Amino acid sequence: MTLLIKDCSMLDVVQGKVLDHMDIYIEGSKILRLGRNLNMVADEVWDGQDKFVVPGFINGHTHLGMSLLRNYADDMNLQTWLTEAIWPIEAKLNPKDIYWGSLLSMAEMIRSGATCFCDQYYAMDQVGDGALKIGMRGILTRGLIEDEKSQEKLEETRDLYKNYHGAGNGRLRVVPSPHAIYTCGTDYLKEVIAMAHDMDGVINIHMSETEKEVEDCVQDHGMTPIAYIDSLGMLDLHVIAAHCVHMTEEEMDLVKGKDFYPIYNPSSNLKLASGFTPVQKMKDKGITLGIGTDGDSSNNNQNILEEVHVGSIVNKAVNMDPKAMPAIDMVRMATIDGAKALGWADEIGSIEEGKKADLTIFNLKSASFTPRNNLISALCYSAQAEDVESVLIDGEVVMKDRVLTKIDYEGILSMVQDRMNQLLTR
Amino acid sequence: MTLLIKDCSMLDVVQGKVLDHMDIYIEGSKILRLGRNLNMVADEVWDGQDKFVVPGFINGHTHLGMSLLRNYADDMNLQTWLTEAIWPIEAKLNPKDIYWGSLLSMAEMIRSGATCFCDQYYAMDQVGDGALKIGMRGILTRGLIEDEKSQEKLEETRDLYKNYHGAGNGRLRVVPSPHAIYTCGTDYLKEVIAMAHDMDGVINIHMSETEKEVEDCVQDHGMTPIAYIDSLGMLDLHVIAAHCVHMTEEEMDLVKGKDFYPIYNPSSNLKLASGFTPVQKMKDKGITLGIGTDGDSSNNNQNILEEVHVGSIVNKAVNMDPKAMPAIDMVRMATIDGAKALGWADEIGSIEEGKKADLTIFNLKSASFTPRNNLISALCYSAQAEDVESVLIDGEVVMKDRVLTKIDYEGILSMVQDRMNQLLTR
Repeated sequence: MTLLIKDCSMLDVVQGKVLDHMDIYIEGSKILRLGRNLNMVADEVWDGQDKFVVPGFINGHTHLGMSLLRNYADDMNLQTWLTEAIWPIEAKLNPKDIYWGSLLSMAEMIRSGATCFCDQYYAMDQVGDGALKIGMRGILTRGLIEDEKSQEKLEETRDLYKNYHGAGNGRLRVVPSPHAIYTCGTDYLKEVIAMAHDMDGVINIHMSETEKEVEDCVQDHGMTPIAYIDSLGMLDLHVIAAHCVHMTEEEMDLVKGKDFYPIYNPSSNLKLASGFTPVQKMKDKGITLGIGTDGDSSNNNQNILEEVHVGSIVNKAVNMDPKAMPAIDMVRMATIDGAKALGWADEIGSIEEGKKADLTIFNLKSASFTPRNNLISALCYSAQAEDVESVLIDGEVVMKDRVLTKIDYEGILSMVQDRMNQLLTR
Repeated sequence: MTLLIKDCSMLDVVQGKVLDHMDIYIEGSKILRLGRNLNMVADEVWDGQDKFVVPGFINGHTHLGMSLLRNYADDMNLQTWLTEAIWPIEAKLNPKDIYWGSLLSMAEMIRSGATCFCDQYYAMDQVGDGALKIGMRGILTRGLIEDEKSQEKLEETRDLYKNYHGAGNGRLRVVPSPHAIYTCGTDYLKEVIAMAHDMDGVINIHMSETEKEVEDCVQDHGMTPIAYIDSLGMLDLHVIAAHCVHMTEEEMDLVKGKDFYPIYNPSSNLKLASGFTPVQKMKDKGITLGIGTDGDSSNNNQNILEEVHVGSIVNKAVNMDPKAMPAIDMVRMATIDGAKALGWADEIGSIEEGKKADLTIFNLKSASFTPRNNLISALCYSAQAEDVESVLIDGEVVMKDRVLTKIDYEGILSMVQDRMNQLLTR
């Protein structure tokens, strides 16, 4: 199957430029040729006029199955929220809830332009099946919390790796994932680190999300959290580190030259009052960050465009500098830098010949992009989810003219509502 | 003309509750009856199942004509941005640019659920004509900056009042509007205050937006800005005070019991790095706030739902309290409190018998509202502009199933692009 998108505006995210009148030629899952007036014959030709083609967005941190708990509990103290609202109902979720909840999140992500995710939850085979169904790319990580089932959970991660790593023409990957340093003991963390070395050398963890986590770590281990994981050898791995709200300057220096990638979750960090993540400082120190939505119970949506927008403007205020975190830096966080953070930049994150055709196509005939003064600014500051017209993942059209092609969107909505109704009676 | 919306979910914003299975009976411009299973015959009946009817949102501060400058200049120092980018091109805008630019903003507002605005700009007759054309409600305020044309501008305000105040079945109002204390001298401010007394006792002004404004005021007048306007007698009027980012606690006490209403503009205040507006503190002091988008050159969109979302989560982080500025408080800011701020709560801001039928209808069959755990949370934290399905203003259907009824949306988009192309050659 070949597809030619003719005469579009295209984001070269590496150079930070919009290229006009571009043709994009896709063969199978890959971008084969880019250029102006390409003389290529394709099975299908799309008119790219009034379209803006950008690299599919990468949601670097989320909990897809939690969409059933969207708007279930808000405006509460963190501890009350977790112990009295979220955990009790979460414990009643069954695998099918997670399947449908994850599909809802994926539908929402595709409809707002995301093509890839890094998910941490449980019943991850269900998430994998959902991703294969809807056609999405992603990293599956089984969140590991130490308890009486610790070894079982490690086994689940091994099974997940065996059954889903590389599935869907390489669309899915599996990475070991200790939940956090405060939910795993030192020995358990070491076991997971060893497992990550046996797999692909990547690990995913919640890191320095709250002030309390940092204080407790200093008290328990005499070190700040990132110094602590370094002492366990975790920094020899590629670390996908969700949050890092309270990362210290010493820790920023410590990770220099290492494969340590914070994933910024602006809405969640603000909503839970975790704090203001020092994003500009991290960038100044040469750290590459990804960006994520976090789960629906702490955001409460999966629209990465909102994270890009909020992330930029909040950092301007924090730094008292309107030049802080400019549009292109934020857009990179959601594309090429996000790909680097996930260890996937060889295949995704930018529109380049030889890379995977993960493409998000915006309709420029919309208020957000009118007038067309600066499409990169528009992407960061004005664009709305509904401006996303079509989405390709791995060369496959998963949404065309806002209609999901591989699954019925309204069917997902009613299944999720049904499952929530059931859940409330359990 | 009568319309009956049957069996909908309806927001009672005063009580902070969602009422299910409600019927809304509209006659002419007004809500005549509310209740369950109303036995009324209407010219038109709409099925309200899977719909959430809320009071039309009120955008308390904007500069509608600036949409031509959307994404024109971003990520710059405030002073450079104003003097080198915005002001030079703004000076070249002509009345027709402002007409079409304002229509674009209004289209965007309606498409994201707003039914009323408070606009400060110039060539305000054009804005009035646009509002009458598209069917929107709003307050027109001619921004007054003291210069050689000061008296001419006062005359324009008088003409505007004569020609547009009460126009469109009372949809339009006109209010005098000194731009700010740093662009108007004391005598000019006094003239505008006198004019406001001669009209309806309402005034609109930018207030304490930046730290510099406060410092300069203290230096020049030996008082903080709100103490200064009080010394001029402005607090005897109903004051619509955009921003108030740097309002002091003393000033909060000073306005107690007065008709002084800050309009919070979260995205703009953050993006321009003006600072974090102390919204929770103002609320705690008993101050009623409205909320606004500000102009497109400092936001860069007119989606009030984003302001509600950002406003809530940023204040949680500022206060280090996830209970700060909960969903219902933010939704009120965009509805009933916004109406109070504009001095219009007798007619708009809530769905009540006898009030104007300014209604925003959300489609609940959307990811944002699935599952339907808490519709008020959904409105604040999840809802997207595209979930707004239909909008009524003054009983008139101005958008049905996302299609504007009184003007061609794509026509506005192409007119604005044409005018921007021309503007760049002037």
